[in-house]
Amino acid sequence: MVAPLRVGIAGLGTVGAEVVRLIEEQSRALAERSGRGVRVVAVTARSKAKKRSLDLRGIHWAKSPLDLASDPNVDCFVELMGGSGEPALSAIEAALKAGKSVVTANKALIAKHGVRLAKAAEKHGGAFNYEAAVGAAIPVIKTLREGLAGTGVSRVYGILNGTCNYILTRMEQEGLSFAECLKDAQRLGYAEANPSFDVDGHDTAQKLAILASLAFGTRVAQSAVYVEGISSIAPEDLRAAEELGYRVKLLGVAVRTAKGIEQRVHPTMVPKSSSIAQVMGVTNAVTIDGEGIPPITLVGPGAGGAATASAVVADIADVARGIRAKPFGRPVERLRDTTKAPMERHEGGYYIRLMARDLAGTAATIATRLAEQKISLESIVQRHPEGVDANGAPKKAAPVPVILITYATSEDAVYRALEAVQRDKVISGRPQVIRIEKN
Amino acid sequence: MVAPLRVGIAGLGTVGAEVVRLIEEQSRALAERSGRGVRVVAVTARSKAKKRSLDLRGIHWAKSPLDLASDPNVDCFVELMGGSGEPALSAIEAALKAGKSVVTANKALIAKHGVRLAKAAEKHGGAFNYEAAVGAAIPVIKTLREGLAGTGVSRVYGILNGTCNYILTRMEQEGLSFAECLKDAQRLGYAEANPSFDVDGHDTAQKLAILASLAFGTRVAQSAVYVEGISSIAPEDLRAAEELGYRVKLLGVAVRTAKGIEQRVHPTMVPKSSSIAQVMGVTNAVTIDGEGIPPITLVGPGAGGAATASAVVADIADVARGIRAKPFGRPVERLRDTTKAPMERHEGGYYIRLMARDLAGTAATIATRLAEQKISLESIVQRHPEGVDANGAPKKAAPVPVILITYATSEDAVYRALEAVQRDKVISGRPQVIRIEKN
Repeated sequence: MVAPLRVGIAGLGTVGAEVVRLIEEQSRALAERSGRGVRVVAVTARSKAKKRSLDLRGIHWAKSPLDLASDPNVDCFVELMGGSGEPALSAIEAALKAGKSVVTANKALIAKHGVRLAKAAEKHGGAFNYEAAVGAAIPVIKTLREGLAGTGVSRVYGILNGTCNYILTRMEQEGLSFAECLKDAQRLGYAEANPSFDVDGHDTAQKLAILASLAFGTRVAQSAVYVEGISSIAPEDLRAAEELGYRVKLLGVAVRTAKGIEQRVHPTMVPKSSSIAQVMGVTNAVTIDGEGIPPITLVGPGAGGAATASAVVADIADVARGIRAKPFGRPVERLRDTTKAPMERHEGGYYIRLMARDLAGTAATIATRLAEQKISLESIVQRHPEGVDANGAPKKAAPVPVILITYATSEDAVYRALEAVQRDKVISGRPQVIRIEKN
Repeated sequence: MVAPLRVGIAGLGTVGAEVVRLIEEQSRALAERSGRGVRVVAVTARSKAKKRSLDLRGIHWAKSPLDLASDPNVDCFVELMGGSGEPALSAIEAALKAGKSVVTANKALIAKHGVRLAKAAEKHGGAFNYEAAVGAAIPVIKTLREGLAGTGVSRVYGILNGTCNYILTRMEQEGLSFAECLKDAQRLGYAEANPSFDVDGHDTAQKLAILASLAFGTRVAQSAVYVEGISSIAPEDLRAAEELGYRVKLLGVAVRTAKGIEQRVHPTMVPKSSSIAQVMGVTNAVTIDGEGIPPITLVGPGAGGAATASAVVADIADVARGIRAKPFGRPVERLRDTTKAPMERHEGGYYIRLMARDLAGTAATIATRLAEQKISLESIVQRHPEGVDANGAPKKAAPVPVILITYATSEDAVYRALEAVQRDKVISGRPQVIRIEKN
């Protein structure tokens, strides 16, 4: 039997502690599956003194992440400290340069320095595994990197942020506002005190950049992702979506178009019958459209200590078995640069909600302005406003919501039409626009 | 660069032809991903004369599968002939004994001879990959074998047969009978002329035995699976399920119980909110419950030439990359025997539909008989029969459907209670019983 794989873990928070526990608990299964024992030989964390319910006897405590990464007794360096920069970056780089394998759950670091780290892994022969960085225990990295190795991907999209999906689910099911749901999510620990990273779509963008790289061979780059968050979504949008056969989800979408790879994060209308529309609460999901085959959807927990640790340990097991996948599926030199997609050129269907000042005249104006831009309508719904008179007719001053669903058109055309409608002064306020993604 | 992997393909039906095409089309991507070219060097099929839209110039035509498997110019033998016995068995065994790797999509063969073939692979060092055998392009084999290497599995269950799910979906959505839907499925090519293998659950049982082996380390054995098909399901069961918040699916379920690993295939009530309940038509899905983590569900095409070929080529790419997983995740000598679970000891909730001869008296009798067996009811629904008089009261002779949902109990207790009810002569016909699977 081969000597056991010696693992060093930097970071002993919820995930790190669970990884230590899991490797101990599953030691027999891990040895059977990988043909080699797996042993935690060294750890480090910010505070050695902190009370932990972990038995660390016989495990070396390294002075720093860098020391741990350079320890000749460590074969596999596991980075669970987080953060897009130091000390994680230098430690991982040191480990890779020493020919060690690295396992991390750090999406921010990969989104920022993934290419540089993949290059180091490739040069020195170690593995660089990060299944936990996207969708925790959902095996989406492995599926894109290995499971679809022989199939071209035309689109990959998903619900990659549990906080946003939790908020949208509650807004939809209880008719609450974004602000109310966010407050609840914060109270329940599903959202941070500063929620911007989640609700403005940046977390999703980091994960999407990683998926796009695996699917399309782009250099992972958060800056190439167009990003819009969910704070502008109103309960009436979710109600209208429901009536029209859609649900609203914050999606990350990476898609091959004639103009290149488009990467975007924004609130999206998805058909209620799609697998992705069924995903509720903090659950995550990713759908992969392979060329010529029906979509494959992977659903599961996108966060949480146990789910993240499960993916980390599976990555460690791959290292033990001697698997050395290219970190982004292809040699780094073959990864292509990608730029942010100009959204004005995006083509798709659109949901548009307007507040018409006066129904009859406005409908005619809107129809004309859309026709001028060659936009066809799939449906139009006029809603009775809160303020109606005794006959059910809108009160003089009350604007009437009008909801439009367009067939595929360019974003440019939509905005030109809406600007014209605004210039016509037949609507009040700014129109709400939500992109539609068909399955 | 390493020399290309030389692939030999036995069987050039829909899947085989698509594999040849895909390897050619994706040759650059395959080489980049696996660090090694992949080339089809030899093929064989029943008829060489048959017209195919394949360019086989430069590819050797072997006289027989066995010849192909023994060809020293072939590194990886791909078996796409099907059938649980010869000539596939001898050819695969010959290839493995020569130290070659083998890729197959043949679930029947694995369910019958999987352990024997895995032993040969283990002894001679070749890979034995069969991702396509269960759920085609859904990466469920890889996920169980590698993606959850560090996590104990407590249950794996799924919709593994598209024909059955297509029939149940149409029955539910259109209120049609089993016989009508089967006829349509046959007309559309979703069901065989002899549909028994699909609709009686045997196809699902073969796939389940494979999943159970990967999840629990059992020796794959179709004989260890309890099997019940869908032909007894009536439209009124699907209507009642809908009202009670359930859907009926043909599930394969493998679960760790105190008494051992239970493997069973039968029509199952699943909560409408579960991921598996959303899966419609010919689509397949598998849910994996890992210890301590929320369920992971993989959804996608379970059959079809392109989807199957996609999984076959991914398996070939793994061979090219040098990955040698243990075929069932563990060394063959560690796989444990498993026997068919005695269903009378199965514990779970039950749906029961009875035709009561006379409502008032029957309800009291049923309640008494269930109470005698310590069975608690979650709900009871009394349906008005087709024949009612002017006051809505049942006509004298018309039996009234009564639907019960029990809390978890043993199957034994359910059948004892129902036998007592039958002896009481308060119901007509045999009761319908469907097991409930909670998520």
